[in-house]
Amino acid sequence: MEAIIVNEEQVKNGLFPMGEKNDAYKDVFVGQSYLDMLVADPEINVGVGNVSFEPGTRNNWHIHHDGYQLLLVTAGEGWYQEEGQEARRLKVGDVVVTKDGVKHWHGATKDSWFSHVAITAGTPEWLEAVDDEAYGKLKNK
Amino acid sequence: MEAIIVNEEQVKNGLFPMGEKNDAYKDVFVGQSYLDMLVADPEINVGVGNVSFEPGTRNNWHIHHDGYQLLLVTAGEGWYQEEGQEARRLKVGDVVVTKDGVKHWHGATKDSWFSHVAITAGTPEWLEAVDDEAYGKLKNK
Repeated sequence: MEAIIVNEEQVKNGLFPMGEKNDAYKDVFVGQSYLDMLVADPEINVGVGNVSFEPGTRNNWHIHHDGYQLLLVTAGEGWYQEEGQEARRLKVGDVVVTKDGVKHWHGATKDSWFSHVAITAGTPEWLEAVDDEAYGKLKNK
Repeated sequence: MEAIIVNEEQVKNGLFPMGEKNDAYKDVFVGQSYLDMLVADPEINVGVGNVSFEPGTRNNWHIHHDGYQLLLVTAGEGWYQEEGQEARRLKVGDVVVTKDGVKHWHGATKDSWFSHVAITAGTPEWLEAVDDEAYGKLKNK
């Protein structure tokens, strides 16, 4: 049975532009993501970007050192997981706070496009990809 | 001629909850605003809130000391003005960066509901209300 893909139009016609293919980060993502930077200013200690994910796309495990990351979900459905915790299903309006030093990943579900605004401080450390089998087993809750 | 009020449903059914009447800040607003805090965490150096404004509602002139404010417009139409500059008309998807020490105000237009996410660092200093006559003269551009 072929999966039904959802939320493509919602992501492509979101509040903020979808931006370009996120080539700068392609080595630390599985799948295709898109990035539109909303705030990138040397006088401001956070960067703000609109990140969009095609279905099945997720970033690698990573850590924000000397900083944090805040996610505001704006379209579609996705996952957020911290190391040692169960993955959390994300929908529009959800907010995620990732604290300094916490290993985590985020991305779309298998069947849905997904967008979040990411507010990020500090220096990221990029780690291994999310295990395909573990990702494949994630189920709607 | 009575004004036609727009964007009420867009604001009331926005991505993020509208929250409660913003009574904590009522002395530094003209009109009725609403606040839903999305991130308020002592370990995070910014606060993130969804602020909604009834038509004609705006905050007083204010300054963020030792910090900044970032606005992401999520619904309706509004105004942003820095001291000594012309007011800037805001629509969905617009982004505003207010730097440390800059005197400014923001709010709805006369005829539209308005919502923005505000990402705020530092300590605000609240000043005088926006002049009624000057606000009344603002025109769509």
